Amino acid sequence: MFLKNAWYVAAMPEEVGKAPLARTVCGEKLVFYRGPDGKAVAVEDFCPHRGAPLSLGYVENGRLVCGYHGLAMGCDGKALDMPGQRVRGFPAIKSYAVEERYGFIWVWPGEPEKADPAMIHHLDWAEKAEWAYGGGLYHIKCDYRLMIDNLMDLTHETYVHTGSIGQKEIDEALVSTKTEGEHVMTSRFMDGVQPPPFWRMALRMNDLADDVKVDRWQICHFHPPSHVLIEVGVAHAGQGGYHAPDAVKASSIVVDFITPETETSHWYFWGMARRFKPGDAALTTQIREGQGKIFNEDREMLEQQQQNLLRWPERHLLKLNIDAGGVQSRRIIERKLMEEVAA
Amino acid sequence: MFLKNAWYVAAMPEEVGKAPLARTVCGEKLVFYRGPDGKAVAVEDFCPHRGAPLSLGYVENGRLVCGYHGLAMGCDGKALDMPGQRVRGFPAIKSYAVEERYGFIWVWPGEPEKADPAMIHHLDWAEKAEWAYGGGLYHIKCDYRLMIDNLMDLTHETYVHTGSIGQKEIDEALVSTKTEGEHVMTSRFMDGVQPPPFWRMALRMNDLADDVKVDRWQICHFHPPSHVLIEVGVAHAGQGGYHAPDAVKASSIVVDFITPETETSHWYFWGMARRFKPGDAALTTQIREGQGKIFNEDREMLEQQQQNLLRWPERHLLKLNIDAGGVQSRRIIERKLMEEVAA
Amino acid sequence: MFLKNAWYVAAMPEEVGKAPLARTVCGEKLVFYRGPDGKAVAVEDFCPHRGAPLSLGYVENGRLVCGYHGLAMGCDGKALDMPGQRVRGFPAIKSYAVEERYGFIWVWPGEPEKADPAMIHHLDWAEKAEWAYGGGLYHIKCDYRLMIDNLMDLTHETYVHTGSIGQKEIDEALVSTKTEGEHVMTSRFMDGVQPPPFWRMALRMNDLADDVKVDRWQICHFHPPSHVLIEVGVAHAGQGGYHAPDAVKASSIVVDFITPETETSHWYFWGMARRFKPGDAALTTQIREGQGKIFNEDREMLEQQQQNLLRWPERHLLKLNIDAGGVQSRRIIERKLMEEVAA
Repeated sequence: MFLKNAWYVAAMPEEVGKAPLARTVCGEKLVFYRGPDGKAVAVEDFCPHRGAPLSLGYVENGRLVCGYHGLAMGCDGKALDMPGQRVRGFPAIKSYAVEERYGFIWVWPGEPEKADPAMIHHLDWAEKAEWAYGGGLYHIKCDYRLMIDNLMDLTHETYVHTGSIGQKEIDEALVSTKTEGEHVMTSRFMDGVQPPPFWRMALRMNDLADDVKVDRWQICHFHPPSHVLIEVGVAHAGQGGYHAPDAVKASSIVVDFITPETETSHWYFWGMARRFKPGDAALTTQIREGQGKIFNEDREMLEQQQQNLLRWPERHLLKLNIDAGGVQSRRIIERKLMEEVAA
Repeated sequence: MFLKNAWYVAAMPEEVGKAPLARTVCGEKLVFYRGPDGKAVAVEDFCPHRGAPLSLGYVENGRLVCGYHGLAMGCDGKALDMPGQRVRGFPAIKSYAVEERYGFIWVWPGEPEKADPAMIHHLDWAEKAEWAYGGGLYHIKCDYRLMIDNLMDLTHETYVHTGSIGQKEIDEALVSTKTEGEHVMTSRFMDGVQPPPFWRMALRMNDLADDVKVDRWQICHFHPPSHVLIEVGVAHAGQGGYHAPDAVKASSIVVDFITPETETSHWYFWGMARRFKPGDAALTTQIREGQGKIFNEDREMLEQQQQNLLRWPERHLLKLNIDAGGVQSRRIIERKLMEEVAA
Repeated sequence: MFLKNAWYVAAMPEEVGKAPLARTVCGEKLVFYRGPDGKAVAVEDFCPHRGAPLSLGYVENGRLVCGYHGLAMGCDGKALDMPGQRVRGFPAIKSYAVEERYGFIWVWPGEPEKADPAMIHHLDWAEKAEWAYGGGLYHIKCDYRLMIDNLMDLTHETYVHTGSIGQKEIDEALVSTKTEGEHVMTSRFMDGVQPPPFWRMALRMNDLADDVKVDRWQICHFHPPSHVLIEVGVAHAGQGGYHAPDAVKASSIVVDFITPETETSHWYFWGMARRFKPGDAALTTQIREGQGKIFNEDREMLEQQQQNLLRWPERHLLKLNIDAGGVQSRRIIERKLMEEVAA
């Protein structure tokens, strides 16, 4: 069961080009394409004529044409026309609210009439010139909530990402979690530590010494339905840490949009927004490649964790203080789900 | 549920050679081999001794010998002998009526005592010297009836086979369907059109101009349990079309034997019988290769259509006039199935 | 359902090295590693913190550390510690009795308090210098009892292993089976036969003429839960056969430890213990490679037999005199299983 009346990231804009894109979101099998005005739209991936997937068809003048027998569909899920046939009376297929914003295509898998674009989570960094963004997409075979847990407890960096961003001090630093309304925040500050390889690279790229001690921070923000945005960075030690002036730090936001596909799989849109050298495309590529490798290290752990949970469904997992971020995030999802079901 | 008291094409003769052939037809797991007289026979693919598949064994003097412990089986499904054992009292496995005719091996998956070889669908072209035949076999993961629908409505050629036999005029031509007893016929005639690439090739091979307008026809014939034979051809325009003299036309029969394997898979025996240049083996190869590519284009559409129908089992597909051929064919299958169940 | 209070071979010692080893035995998902004293141990492959497989972690000073968030487990399944957390109150996961003996790692998947190492099946050859052993491990997708049947009836050698150890005379020789307590013994003696290729090789390696007639024997011993040890050999004909002096024979023991994984898969530890040229490592390799090829020939037959049995669950297999070994072995398993369930 998923929170359906919510905005999820469904695709990157370049994925919805000339050809239709098949993608299942929250159990809804959708096809995305661009309508007559170039706007991204989505309807069910099911031709009302013979049940063929519309995603095997093509787009012509903003009309989605079934590749089996030529039925043309409108963005509203109504049949438009078909050579030699009267099709206007066909039962419509479902259409979905879709918005393109902040460099992502968002979908609202629930009731379209409730879909208010103003409810799309605001991304300040996506609108400002001093920021640059690069990211990718992974298909992960586990419950999307396991990925939320993963990202709201960065303790795992020490173990899963040993060679890049992990360091022993993460384990040792106190973690603090608080919830304000639907916003969960988990923070960790490590002062006077050696920067691990990824951050040494970031310091160098930012023209800063990388062989000195740093103050490091991680502030994870959960927002429903399943966004995790993590402020991360290092500053030369003793200069104020998170609050240090830009000239002595390298900081960025790890961006995680976690979109359920089925109960045991999800689309993981990952990336990094950085507030240094925004015009340096080579740096964007370098960071994306590094981050892609790191996030791929989580895959086996999460997918096998999922298999273990399916095998032992009766077992209760333990919730330590480091798990508070995930626990509180799930509680918000659960509460909103109850509200949605009740409504 | 399948029509079991019927003749289906099970294999091509060259598939049943020295080694036994495992093949499931209408849910029956069979092994085909050649008995003492070289005649193709079929029994259940299950050794009554330890349940090993007999298809892993070998044929010796027309006896099927289990490859696990050497039990020799007779064509009637009775155990013949086994070194050092008395096996004549073993319970028999099922044997099936099999006939080799018209260049195909046919099986009757139902009650053998009802299997009358005279009921095998007559193929005139297979017996006459002025015809040549070439074809192939595909395993397709969808309900065999979706393939019947596909072949009884050639509208899809415009969309699925754009680069070979599709052309816009198929969509525009009126389609007419009629049923006579157990024979469904769907026809379409397109006069004065440009021949598409496949037919230009056929005209050239037939020593005819390929850069002129043609009259094109498609007459699909369904016969139970699941045979679709399609008269197709082009004649230089204005010479009588389907009835034009041989000297100005290229015509052939698309041969489709569609044999259920499971509820969601089938064996698709496809081919083309042509009434021109029957002795030209290179032409047979060329046509088979072209046709093989074309029929492979249907695969993804049909298999994904099947997946969609499994996902939305409650949805009713729409039946347009172009679907009449499939609808009437399915009605005949349904009626015969009810008769078979009642009997 | 498996006999759980029994010793099974779980791994070869070299498989449990620096990294933890995931292996499912009798439906129990286990992780094997070496504890502080280097002794092999096993616990459930499930971290009590978040359910991650412990086999994805690492071993540090004999402590199994979860690779997700660093929980360290003890050999008894109790949580030891975790950075910054109090974990001693965590519910323990199951731990298992494990012994390393005779060159194998044995596990007792049932109640550890009943696990008496003295009950490990005694292997005389594994302790004596005049014997050499070589073997391997296959994962086979069938019920482990089908493998017991296979090995307790060597008639199949004639059919499955034609080019190596099979020969027509196996079929013709009388087979005799007897049960003494929990020990089933099936014997076959073939006097004055041509040695098949594998045995010609063994004779040559043993500096004996290989172009003469031999007396050949096969004595299969089943011991619960699922061990099959087969005395096999050939002696120059007329010298006493099984009882002939060493100087005129080549003999060995085929070693088969058959460890259930799931109801339809098992781990097959196969090998050969020989009492000639024990110091010849090249010979060990040569025999292992030959035997590996032979035992791989059984795989397709057994796995497809399993598929057939699943497809026709209602069919009763026939039990001939050659099947007596398997039948009596299964009867012992069944009786012990009833005792275990009753207890």
